[in-house]
Amino acid sequence: MTQAKSITSRDNPLLVRLRKLAGDPGAYRKLGEVWIEGDHLCSALLQRGGKPAQAVITELAWDQPALRTLAEQAAAVAVIPQALMDGLSTLESAAPIGFVVPWQGSAALEPDAPTIVLDRLQDAGNVGTILRSASAFGFAQVVAIKGTAALWSPKVLRAGMGAHFGLRLVEGVDSLQGLRVPLLAASSHAKGAIHDTRLPWPCAWVMGHEGQGVSDALMRQCAMTLRIPQPGGEESLNVSMAAAICMYESSRQRLPHHP
Amino acid sequence: MTQAKSITSRDNPLLVRLRKLAGDPGAYRKLGEVWIEGDHLCSALLQRGGKPAQAVITELAWDQPALRTLAEQAAAVAVIPQALMDGLSTLESAAPIGFVVPWQGSAALEPDAPTIVLDRLQDAGNVGTILRSASAFGFAQVVAIKGTAALWSPKVLRAGMGAHFGLRLVEGVDSLQGLRVPLLAASSHAKGAIHDTRLPWPCAWVMGHEGQGVSDALMRQCAMTLRIPQPGGEESLNVSMAAAICMYESSRQRLPHHP
Repeated sequence: MTQAKSITSRDNPLLVRLRKLAGDPGAYRKLGEVWIEGDHLCSALLQRGGKPAQAVITELAWDQPALRTLAEQAAAVAVIPQALMDGLSTLESAAPIGFVVPWQGSAALEPDAPTIVLDRLQDAGNVGTILRSASAFGFAQVVAIKGTAALWSPKVLRAGMGAHFGLRLVEGVDSLQGLRVPLLAASSHAKGAIHDTRLPWPCAWVMGHEGQGVSDALMRQCAMTLRIPQPGGEESLNVSMAAAICMYESSRQRLPHHP
Repeated sequence: MTQAKSITSRDNPLLVRLRKLAGDPGAYRKLGEVWIEGDHLCSALLQRGGKPAQAVITELAWDQPALRTLAEQAAAVAVIPQALMDGLSTLESAAPIGFVVPWQGSAALEPDAPTIVLDRLQDAGNVGTILRSASAFGFAQVVAIKGTAALWSPKVLRAGMGAHFGLRLVEGVDSLQGLRVPLLAASSHAKGAIHDTRLPWPCAWVMGHEGQGVSDALMRQCAMTLRIPQPGGEESLNVSMAAAICMYESSRQRLPHHP
């Protein structure tokens, strides 16, 4: 059984590192480890075969059998007071448990995978929910262009609800050279509509910056630009809604129909 | 031209009221007025024919012609220092302008309108983005069951991006008696899939609480429960993604196809 160690000083080197990971969305790149907060994410990691190096659990949670068992899946366990856990959290009320896992670095680009490209998306909530939808609709790879919110930050992890652990995540990319699947983008100016166009598969949907949209350079690389029909006439959908609809439509066109 | 009044005291009754509206999501029900923050929302309100009773604008913004013109569309204008505007904002950096509009109260239920029912949704961002999608896909009415995040709160307004001003918004409802359109709900346990089922129109999609889903009582009232096909096999989509996809599919089935 894993040995549990009690930590009560906020100056403990583990906690100092974790505060950096919790406070700075991009810190995992420098520190080489990721802070996975909350029992939902921790369980999702284990279900995908992840191997946590370290569990951090509150004293209260350590007395709860289910949470203790979860903690004991890690190679080491630190039991800490609630007040110290509060300092590691980006939530209003801190989760009772978290894991520290080694960061594997950016994955290598898979040229033929169904892909979502994130072109400088800023909002961590948008990025996380898009990862979740990608996982649901069988887009196995997500490629984040430089300038996109850090994929393994606590906020993106939370919104991703575990999707991170099943996706191929490529970060900090300058160009899409090497990606062989055709690029598609949604654009309200496009003539063709997604529901009325035979979509290629596999493909890569490009999702753009919340304010500026997809960059001109990337737009020119797209094999198709397509409209999401919006009979209500609003100018645009939230980018994560648009992403979900594009992925759903790609998926729908490949499903059997029973008319 | 509208007379502009300078306010420099934080104890001014208008500012006291606005701080309540900014700080308490449900305060508009008691105070009978809504705080519309930011030039995007203010412009959206005017485009829909809204009549702001009061504009509040920072001293700096008052010197910018576009923002001054926007402010002058209101019946009265208050010019205030930046520091006081900061106290009225739920944003990290306060918007330069806001409108106060009388709250019309909950709209009366329209029995035959294409409708989205919100069954105790908690997250203001989810509620706002669903309103935005409803507007895009021609769901003219949104009905919020008691316990749903307050529709006219600053956070829901922000995520709604102006959709509020074009929708029929019914709040604080106990039951759906009086709604004649068939109720539909998405459920991962359902046999039929949305893409493979002829969806009725008009209809009402019921979207449930983030953790608990649609209540059993409401589920029993549904004419159909349907699956969103997720070939990736994730257990569930974020509720606002699911809502966008259901609305898109309802809309897609009514569009002309050119195969």
